[in-house]
Amino acid sequence: MAEKKNNTKLPLRRRKKDSESPVVSGAVIKRLPRYYRYLRQLLAEDIRRISSGELSRMMNVTASQIRQDFNCFGGFGQQGYGYNVKYLYTKIGELLGVTSNLSAIILGAGNLGSALASSPIFERRGIRLMALFDSNPKLVGTMKYGFPVLGLAELEAYVKENNIDIGIITIPRDAAPEMAEKLANYGIRGLWNFTSRELDVTTYGVVTENVHLGDSLMTLCYKISDKNETEG
Amino acid sequence: MAEKKNNTKLPLRRRKKDSESPVVSGAVIKRLPRYYRYLRQLLAEDIRRISSGELSRMMNVTASQIRQDFNCFGGFGQQGYGYNVKYLYTKIGELLGVTSNLSAIILGAGNLGSALASSPIFERRGIRLMALFDSNPKLVGTMKYGFPVLGLAELEAYVKENNIDIGIITIPRDAAPEMAEKLANYGIRGLWNFTSRELDVTTYGVVTENVHLGDSLMTLCYKISDKNETEG
Repeated sequence: MAEKKNNTKLPLRRRKKDSESPVVSGAVIKRLPRYYRYLRQLLAEDIRRISSGELSRMMNVTASQIRQDFNCFGGFGQQGYGYNVKYLYTKIGELLGVTSNLSAIILGAGNLGSALASSPIFERRGIRLMALFDSNPKLVGTMKYGFPVLGLAELEAYVKENNIDIGIITIPRDAAPEMAEKLANYGIRGLWNFTSRELDVTTYGVVTENVHLGDSLMTLCYKISDKNETEG
Repeated sequence: MAEKKNNTKLPLRRRKKDSESPVVSGAVIKRLPRYYRYLRQLLAEDIRRISSGELSRMMNVTASQIRQDFNCFGGFGQQGYGYNVKYLYTKIGELLGVTSNLSAIILGAGNLGSALASSPIFERRGIRLMALFDSNPKLVGTMKYGFPVLGLAELEAYVKENNIDIGIITIPRDAAPEMAEKLANYGIRGLWNFTSRELDVTTYGVVTENVHLGDSLMTLCYKISDKNETEG
């Protein structure tokens, strides 16, 4: 029955270093990539300012949610004047580590590896894609969209010499755990995993993001069947 | 201050049809694809029974969470005897609509479309991939991993004649909204969207699952930078 003294929630985790970094909750962080995507779209359309109301309609999120989220890292908005799109885009990019100039390699130069190599997904986020690696001797030595395909024998030296940050795993699922462990040993900092095998090398201090396309497809199937039954 | 009469939560939505279908909350549904994936792995390793404790260790979820989730759709477990893996796999598959024999086409026969066509992702989930469609005359008329690549001129007739359920969008992002609207008009029921453009054709009664690889990559970057700052 004690009265609440204040209603500001403590963040889950405080950063130790860099006292200027804002403290942002995990829930807000999860929403940032989506804001970032919409803001990039606005920039591409040469829109310089946007109100929380307009952004709300575009993104199908309440304006109050947007204001709350942006307040978490210092506002950036002026009443009746809207947000500066470029500034917001840059700030969110910094929070997301876009400006930290990470480097990446793709493991597997098959269709998926090639699809990733050909996409603007890295460049747009300030990530330097460096090379692809494959065990297939027919692919080794070729180029994919301007990136060299190297053999696995060169992997260890390459990762260490170039201080590669991100390993993108598009190899067959059964080979994935061993590859993840190797990359962790070579000093890689993060794994982006496209195999259906969940990878966890946190014991090595490596963070992992599992894509799991299959789970996404199953969710779609569920939505279709569910819709059918509810309406049928 | 009124005493709670019971603590069973009402589900968010009840199905109208099929009184035998269990009612499962949205939060449980979100976890089902992951259970399904692990159970398939167990089946592949010829493991017939598993306790909630063992599954808990494998999946890094509490055993009590697993028991609660499985209880939602009728238990399937016996105290001290564990769960029947095959039965659980089949039941979860039914809930997820795996057995509803949905058909799919891929829009775009480039690297990503080809990567999807070559993967076992559809077959494993009982989805019949039928064809790819592309605007590039060099690709039209060829085969990709046993599936024909057809021209866009044939799209409308093909979707209608074959009652296609799922459209998989791997075309350039700027062409995606128009394509989504067309597919909705032709009677497609669900879209699996790989472009960075969020698609929403719910006004047409079509459900959509957006993949957004870019968001996943940004989350990884954030985890890497955050880890660095926290530890640095």
